[in-house]
Amino acid sequence: MSVDTLLYWVGLAAVAVNALTGVLDSERKQMDLVGALLVGFATALGGGTVRDLLLDRNVFWVVDQTYVTVALGTGFLTFFVARALTIPPRLFLIPDALGLALFTVVGTQVALQWHTPWLVASLMGMITGVLGGVIRDILCNDVPLVFLKGELYASAAWLGAMTLIGLQAVGFHAIDASWVAMAVVLVLRLLAMRYHLTLPAFGSRSER
Amino acid sequence: MSVDTLLYWVGLAAVAVNALTGVLDSERKQMDLVGALLVGFATALGGGTVRDLLLDRNVFWVVDQTYVTVALGTGFLTFFVARALTIPPRLFLIPDALGLALFTVVGTQVALQWHTPWLVASLMGMITGVLGGVIRDILCNDVPLVFLKGELYASAAWLGAMTLIGLQAVGFHAIDASWVAMAVVLVLRLLAMRYHLTLPAFGSRSER
Amino acid sequence: MSVDTLLYWVGLAAVAVNALTGVLDSERKQMDLVGALLVGFATALGGGTVRDLLLDRNVFWVVDQTYVTVALGTGFLTFFVARALTIPPRLFLIPDALGLALFTVVGTQVALQWHTPWLVASLMGMITGVLGGVIRDILCNDVPLVFLKGELYASAAWLGAMTLIGLQAVGFHAIDASWVAMAVVLVLRLLAMRYHLTLPAFGSRSER
Repeated sequence: MSVDTLLYWVGLAAVAVNALTGVLDSERKQMDLVGALLVGFATALGGGTVRDLLLDRNVFWVVDQTYVTVALGTGFLTFFVARALTIPPRLFLIPDALGLALFTVVGTQVALQWHTPWLVASLMGMITGVLGGVIRDILCNDVPLVFLKGELYASAAWLGAMTLIGLQAVGFHAIDASWVAMAVVLVLRLLAMRYHLTLPAFGSRSER
Repeated sequence: MSVDTLLYWVGLAAVAVNALTGVLDSERKQMDLVGALLVGFATALGGGTVRDLLLDRNVFWVVDQTYVTVALGTGFLTFFVARALTIPPRLFLIPDALGLALFTVVGTQVALQWHTPWLVASLMGMITGVLGGVIRDILCNDVPLVFLKGELYASAAWLGAMTLIGLQAVGFHAIDASWVAMAVVLVLRLLAMRYHLTLPAFGSRSER
Repeated sequence: MSVDTLLYWVGLAAVAVNALTGVLDSERKQMDLVGALLVGFATALGGGTVRDLLLDRNVFWVVDQTYVTVALGTGFLTFFVARALTIPPRLFLIPDALGLALFTVVGTQVALQWHTPWLVASLMGMITGVLGGVIRDILCNDVPLVFLKGELYASAAWLGAMTLIGLQAVGFHAIDASWVAMAVVLVLRLLAMRYHLTLPAFGSRSER
């Protein structure tokens, strides 16, 4: 399997997972079908779109309609399933963590293939991973979750991106490094949720 | 009249109409002249700007200053008229529907001329039509209206874009198809407002 | 000193100053280290990024990692200093005004070198100057300050951009015109804060 084939399938999986989380989040705001689909679409494709604009590449879903079909199809199914069932919110933190891991690796690899400096590549990976969720939260008029005090999120993505870059720099094959980096992000994020791992934060006013 | 001439004038009309709705909406937030002009500017030019960035075209108003002049001129006039008169909010739903129809057709035609896949072209039409209003609502710190439960809006734009693509696919001339598609969006939106046509939506918590 | 050298150093200074204001503002929302760094990063680099996307230039920080290092380094230092000390909010209006002046001049010069029409160039200067703060406020889920009734802000930037364009049109050297324009923005903004200079605004509902 070539790196490009791996990235293609990982990218499609990430799009599907993020579309699902976008539609589920829109439920809180009582959106209709089109509103939910648009939020799912923006969550699924937003991070990669910003990455491609920043790198001046062709935007991935404009040149390959498959991504659009996957995002809208997943969103459509999710909408009707979520209307029929009551789904506990905690259940979606796992697909959300998976989407973060997948998109971070795809974003970092694309930037490396585009020969950006390494620090920029690691940021592109993190942006691709977290920006879909940021856009989702802005559209739903919330402070984006990733910015608030809480368990590791963007930092897990950044550490995964740095792992990928480091492993390739010392000679690992891109495919092996990609699997390791995905595992790093996913495990860090799941451990962070389980054990409430946090970063230093600005304290609340009342604590100071 | 060529298609390009039609699209040019329809585009200018859409810019003027959207600048008007942006400035009127900023009244609710007690903005000053520059704030209102900036919101009007972003509402008028935002949808087309995102379309051009996604398609990697030259951004339309950067290469042709006329659009900027029309957006700022309309916004300026609207600001002073709206300060002098009290205007009932319902009155602006009609120019808003008109702007939606005009921008949807321009956006879809531009994407088709750029040879995007048809599903992408229909989304570009919808994005061009609704995104100005989404940006306006984000700048005013509201949940964008287009996402909330309510009468058909983005769906009217999408059906109009699909009408345009379908008519051209079966051999209609681009100009004829454009007029029909504009009428479809406008009539659907006006009927939706009159008869409260809605899509399936997530229910409110209390209903479930 | 060439114009490009001046713009490079002024740009770096503007990035540092804006990263500082972004991190300080994120304190109000009790963000953690990564959230604060991301808000600082977006505040520092957001305005110039949008300018470069609109002009279809290479995004400045993607091709030169120095800007990223300066933004993150300044944000990092600011985070830990702001946690240790209590800093009165008024104190930051001066670096904020400085960032506005620096970015406005850099943005206008870049657009002029790119041969945009003059009205577009003045808007690019204003966008580069104010958009970082707009993005910061959207990320923190506030109505952007620049849109609200208040002392001259975007209008000070626009007048500075027009000064720069006017002086160069009548034959001043780009470097001299840049210094004058920076002074115009800074002095206008500081006078506006000191003497509460405002523009016409939509009145509050209770006044009407």
